[in-house]
Amino acid sequence: MQSNQNFLFVLKFLGTNYHGWQIQKNSITVQEIFQNALFKLINSKTDIKGCSRTDSGVHANCYCVSAKIDIKIDPIRLTLALNNYLPNDIRVLKCIKVNDDFHARYSCVAKEYVYKIYNHRVMDPFMFGRSLHFWYNLDLDLMNELASSFLGYHDFTAFCSKDNRKCENMSRNIMYFNINRLDNIVEFKVKSDGFLYNMVRIMVGTILEGNYKKMKKEDILHILDSKDRSLSGPTVPAHGLYLNKVFYEGIIL
Amino acid sequence: MQSNQNFLFVLKFLGTNYHGWQIQKNSITVQEIFQNALFKLINSKTDIKGCSRTDSGVHANCYCVSAKIDIKIDPIRLTLALNNYLPNDIRVLKCIKVNDDFHARYSCVAKEYVYKIYNHRVMDPFMFGRSLHFWYNLDLDLMNELASSFLGYHDFTAFCSKDNRKCENMSRNIMYFNINRLDNIVEFKVKSDGFLYNMVRIMVGTILEGNYKKMKKEDILHILDSKDRSLSGPTVPAHGLYLNKVFYEGIIL
Repeated sequence: MQSNQNFLFVLKFLGTNYHGWQIQKNSITVQEIFQNALFKLINSKTDIKGCSRTDSGVHANCYCVSAKIDIKIDPIRLTLALNNYLPNDIRVLKCIKVNDDFHARYSCVAKEYVYKIYNHRVMDPFMFGRSLHFWYNLDLDLMNELASSFLGYHDFTAFCSKDNRKCENMSRNIMYFNINRLDNIVEFKVKSDGFLYNMVRIMVGTILEGNYKKMKKEDILHILDSKDRSLSGPTVPAHGLYLNKVFYEGIIL
Repeated sequence: MQSNQNFLFVLKFLGTNYHGWQIQKNSITVQEIFQNALFKLINSKTDIKGCSRTDSGVHANCYCVSAKIDIKIDPIRLTLALNNYLPNDIRVLKCIKVNDDFHARYSCVAKEYVYKIYNHRVMDPFMFGRSLHFWYNLDLDLMNELASSFLGYHDFTAFCSKDNRKCENMSRNIMYFNINRLDNIVEFKVKSDGFLYNMVRIMVGTILEGNYKKMKKEDILHILDSKDRSLSGPTVPAHGLYLNKVFYEGIIL
């Protein structure tokens, strides 16, 4: 008889000090830190599942983890207890009891990423490391038009870093992709059923390139069709990227 | 003949890494860093005037400095050049040519401070070091009532740290003091013609104490009248405090 309870943990973290989520031999990662905190609390090694890999320096407003643990504790107390064992740049926002078959990665039906640009001549010291400093004029109307070319189901080979091109299916469905300005901060927001390696950062880089090259919607469609990474734009830096939402059927985070 | 031009520099800085503004022998301060940057640019030692002392760890959305420098350069280029010599947590937002008799401290007619509280059970990792984590219920209506007791002209001896009580006039005029919530962030905003040492932090601490002690407006007035520091509340930590605006006659920042 299995007495373990399956939990979903919702984390928020500032990625600056970490080499992404996934555990690595020679670098500090969020997974290692979280696993150690859980180990201190329940006093036994536990297999934890993250909702996705994230690159070094990427932030998360919402990162989901699942783990089966043998502990009789109310979710609110579990949240507070775990935070006592975590550094200040990683917080557990909440813990939710979930069904046995829930898996943070495989149960995930969609994710939303945000990319932040600080668009002003002088960088804001409070946004340093939390957004990309970009001081040229941004034509939001044009960029939103370009972003709309990505909507729907496409093969994203041209928007995936080469070292991740395995045998897998390279098609993804983009539900929305819009760009908004709030004062000096320009935010790209995109939701998809899945993202290839560096896909958000290459799409944002291509739209920024499209901004000063005065690209048209058709140019984006042409790059998508080409499946040629050399035609899309640069990969923008990780420190502007936030995993913002994770979607599961029947679970409200 | 004096060929020097008097400049007003508007700075924004994250105070976390600095022991306040004013130069000190054994600590790193914003003044020292800024003075060194200016020295590298104009290649001569310059006397610079800050608009106020700030405590260790206090932040500034707007900190004003004046200095007479011998340089023929457009203010926008001066801004960019200075930022090249500054660390990422200190930025010059703008430089303005001002009259010879302008002095960042003595010409200042009022200042506005903001104090930020992160009011939720779990701290936001992005607000750590940039706000006070306070997770008990805050009654904004009551706190705004208490804050209104400070309005107008009062002797603030009871709201000044003891080691700053010299012979000087302890009376100040508070123009506004209000408290607002935006999601989990509760912001205290106060404007005065001047602030005594730790005055904002003690007023905020007293209002927070008033929140759970269910104080009344008269209790605040009684503490003001008493001139007794032992009757006011604790000094809240520096890392929630921001110098937010500095006011000068005839200059729009």
